[in-house]
Amino acid sequence: MKEGEKYVHKFIVTDETYQGFIGAFNDRNPLHTDEAFAMSKGFKGKVMHGNILNGFISYFVGECLPVKNVAIQLQSITYVLPVYLHDELEFTAEIKEYFDSVYAYCFSYYFKNKDGKKVAKGDFQIGLLV
Amino acid sequence: MKEGEKYVHKFIVTDETYQGFIGAFNDRNPLHTDEAFAMSKGFKGKVMHGNILNGFISYFVGECLPVKNVAIQLQSITYVLPVYLHDELEFTAEIKEYFDSVYAYCFSYYFKNKDGKKVAKGDFQIGLLV
Repeated sequence: MKEGEKYVHKFIVTDETYQGFIGAFNDRNPLHTDEAFAMSKGFKGKVMHGNILNGFISYFVGECLPVKNVAIQLQSITYVLPVYLHDELEFTAEIKEYFDSVYAYCFSYYFKNKDGKKVAKGDFQIGLLV
Repeated sequence: MKEGEKYVHKFIVTDETYQGFIGAFNDRNPLHTDEAFAMSKGFKGKVMHGNILNGFISYFVGECLPVKNVAIQLQSITYVLPVYLHDELEFTAEIKEYFDSVYAYCFSYYFKNKDGKKVAKGDFQIGLLV
C-alpha cells in the first residue's frame, strides 16, 4: 500500500442493505421511508440514508484492502447528491499520504452514480494494528 | 432549535445492532468478529465497527430532533477509544451554529462510555428540507 494507489469498488444499495440498515438503527425518517414525502421535497423517490455509504466504507476498509490488521481512525463525508434504492455506486479511494511513524494511511474517496456524478466524497484515515 | 441547545441520547450496542450492521454491510474484518485476533492486538474483545456510531447519528438526526424535514449534509467522526459489544454510550450533541440563509445547523457531538470516557467525537451539518 503506497501513496498514489487507487482502489475501485462497486456497491449497490440493495433491499437487503436498506432494510438491514433500518433494522440495525431504526432511522425511519420520512425522507428515507415515505415515497410521497420525499417527492414532496423534490426528490425522485425515497432518499437512502447517507450513512449507508459510511457502511460501504466500513466494508471497503475491513474487507477490500490487502491487509486485515486495520482500524479506521477518523473519517468525513460530504453528501452531494441523493442516492436512491438500487443505485449502483462506483467507489474510488486513493491513498494520499502514509505516516510512517504511526502506521497511518490517509485516503480521499468519492462515490459516483451511474450517471457519472459524484454523490458523496470525503477522507478517512486508517491505522495498522501492529 | 437554537444555537447552544444540547441533546442527550443513550445508545446501546446490542446484538441486534451489531449483527444488523454485519448483515447490511458484510464487514467481517477479524478486529470486529474474531475475539482472539482482537485480543492479540491489545483489545478487551471484539471491537465494534466505528460506523455503528455513524448509524446512531443517523437515528439521532432522523428520529430525535423536534423536526422531521432534515437531511445530513456532511459529517465527521474521530474514533478515540474502542467500543465493545453491549456498551452503553451517552451521545451528546450541541448546536454550534445556525446558517439562516441556507437553513443549515452545525452540531458538535461526542459519545461517552460508562466510564465517562469519550469514545468518539465529531461534527455534522444538517439542512432543513423546505
